[in-house]
Amino acid sequence: MIILGIDPGLRTTGFGVIHKQGTKLRYIASGTIKSGEGDLPTRLKVILDGVMELTATYQPDCAAIEQVYVNVNPQSTLLLGQARGAAICGLVSGALSVAEYSPTQIKQAVTGSGRAVKEQMQLMVARLLALPGLPGTDAADALGVAICHANSHDTLAAIAATGMTQLHMKRGRLVG
Amino acid sequence: MIILGIDPGLRTTGFGVIHKQGTKLRYIASGTIKSGEGDLPTRLKVILDGVMELTATYQPDCAAIEQVYVNVNPQSTLLLGQARGAAICGLVSGALSVAEYSPTQIKQAVTGSGRAVKEQMQLMVARLLALPGLPGTDAADALGVAICHANSHDTLAAIAATGMTQLHMKRGRLVG
Repeated sequence: MIILGIDPGLRTTGFGVIHKQGTKLRYIASGTIKSGEGDLPTRLKVILDGVMELTATYQPDCAAIEQVYVNVNPQSTLLLGQARGAAICGLVSGALSVAEYSPTQIKQAVTGSGRAVKEQMQLMVARLLALPGLPGTDAADALGVAICHANSHDTLAAIAATGMTQLHMKRGRLVG
Repeated sequence: MIILGIDPGLRTTGFGVIHKQGTKLRYIASGTIKSGEGDLPTRLKVILDGVMELTATYQPDCAAIEQVYVNVNPQSTLLLGQARGAAICGLVSGALSVAEYSPTQIKQAVTGSGRAVKEQMQLMVARLLALPGLPGTDAADALGVAICHANSHDTLAAIAATGMTQLHMKRGRLVG
């Protein structure tokens, strides 16, 4: 299974592609899409086209994208939202299923701590994928999303395979 | 010249298509794209596909989209941003040029007042396009963006045609 992870941003969109076979993860590619200096529609087109090119090149089976925090500056939140919308459009235009994870979930999945700093993410991503050096921070975050999805997928698949009952809470009681 | 106007929203995206010949505006179509109840990537895909279908159906020469206000709720701002990003992607994926106008600019262009209320917009859009009835508020806003662009385009074209010098302010002084 090939997983494409995306760390969205208006200026820089990070991407990471990994291959998962059983519990083994293998690095395929990572990098960034830079949206340049044009007007907003032009920059969104760069992101859209960039993500579409990634899906055409690496033919991922599924995709995962980081949820973004709201910024203290509402105008920045609005711009970031539009960039994330463009990245998601690049994924769904190819009928790819897209999972979403919060930064905390991703840090937890990669480093074991939801409060990990950037350097810890880079280090652990490099270790988990046996990289020869540290990836850039945007690429590391994107690879982290892909790793997080690989692990979550694992859990769900394992539950499905063993036929374990998934439990839910209803009015404070566990139900099957 | 055929102009496609878009009023973006996560739940409802308004659209309006008008034809401009000289100073004459003619109504072609208007309506809404409803994103439904799916998860966010699914809803953004509905908006993306919907706008792409509009550009394929009406073959507009250019497009214009309303700028959105930041919401008091930052999470709503983020969602609205993503919806607007998806709508812009639907436009630029077909290599359409996209102009942006603020709500105030649009109201000013359609009603003569930047503080016009929804009902005034519906009335003036119906009058300017000689519609037999009032369009819905989302469709009226989208038609308003298209009318605003038709007029702005006019102004710029007129300036270009007469070879008038465009004046700019620099450190408080007009420069050529």
